[in-house]
Amino acid sequence: MPDAGRLIAFEGVEGAGKSTQLHLTAESLRERGHCVVETREPGGTALGAQMRRLLMHEYDHPPAPFAELFLYLADRAQHIAEVIGPSLAAGQVVLTDRFSASTIAYQGYARGLDLATVVLLDERARQGVSPDLTLILDCPAEAGLQRAHGDDRFHRERLAFHERVRHGFLTMAKARPDLYRVVDATAPSAIVRAQILEAVLECLNTE
Amino acid sequence: MPDAGRLIAFEGVEGAGKSTQLHLTAESLRERGHCVVETREPGGTALGAQMRRLLMHEYDHPPAPFAELFLYLADRAQHIAEVIGPSLAAGQVVLTDRFSASTIAYQGYARGLDLATVVLLDERARQGVSPDLTLILDCPAEAGLQRAHGDDRFHRERLAFHERVRHGFLTMAKARPDLYRVVDATAPSAIVRAQILEAVLECLNTE
Repeated sequence: MPDAGRLIAFEGVEGAGKSTQLHLTAESLRERGHCVVETREPGGTALGAQMRRLLMHEYDHPPAPFAELFLYLADRAQHIAEVIGPSLAAGQVVLTDRFSASTIAYQGYARGLDLATVVLLDERARQGVSPDLTLILDCPAEAGLQRAHGDDRFHRERLAFHERVRHGFLTMAKARPDLYRVVDATAPSAIVRAQILEAVLECLNTE
Repeated sequence: MPDAGRLIAFEGVEGAGKSTQLHLTAESLRERGHCVVETREPGGTALGAQMRRLLMHEYDHPPAPFAELFLYLADRAQHIAEVIGPSLAAGQVVLTDRFSASTIAYQGYARGLDLATVVLLDERARQGVSPDLTLILDCPAEAGLQRAHGDDRFHRERLAFHERVRHGFLTMAKARPDLYRVVDATAPSAIVRAQILEAVLECLNTE
């Protein structure tokens, strides 16, 4: 029997450096002999990639808040069925660029959907899978947006929207310090990397 | 103030004649001076049409049952926000080819997802909108499949799947005779049309 796998989510506002740090963490873990799966939401599967396209696209009628929420949850359900679930069952370390905390921060805290409803619906989509560790790469929304190069619907949301996202992440982290770790993403990259690796290794060494 | 609108759903197994009868009903209502919106799920909006394409497409990894459910609910939330809600608010009669009963019959009764969960999630997607009348165009699944010309994932489900869909529709109709009307779709088209029109006019004349 392989060891139980671990699911670690990298979260943060746009431009916080999630993708870069996720990849650096994967490198560090592979050097230590871990079998690592790098993935992301939305778009971690073939079907999810199509949904990601729908979510980022510009429409005459933009997605209604609940339509947007359900699309993210569809992407998550597929991601769990096709990638995350089998990888965890095989004892691998799954690093995902965004997961449930993003849904709660963006669709709940920032978009304003009822938080309890978002949490409940996400729970149904996850079907029992939950991160062993959620890393919040924290920086002021404005700093993140200046670093981000995207040009999709989300990059053009107003600054106040991204500030609410950040507030959501920090509120969740404060409520569950056992499951979240906040890392100052404005620190030099090497320091950010080291702090993340420390938290991840601690998580991997926990039974 | 316009009269309150009415939402009427046409439901049934593949090939039961929903689309044809929906259009005939719309004609009859327009002759009587009603303002009628003909629509469908999935695909009643621009975003929904993209989701419909995703749902009907063939994948190496087919959509996981929960991913499929959430896609249908995303389509519904958008449909309500963009088409059904505004049309009802304007006092129009909305005829939709499939709605919640299909989700419960296909994803719940036939696909085997927990019924209570499907009902709960659908309720969140509908946000208070529900059909004033749901017509079940009933016929044996085998007869419907012989009439249906489709060649998508759903047409190729095994017969037992479609029998479970039919059983689901009939069970829901039996539980709520005040909201459902079952019409024998194997009768001659003119008789089916007359029975549907009678039920619809009764619904429209109810305050």
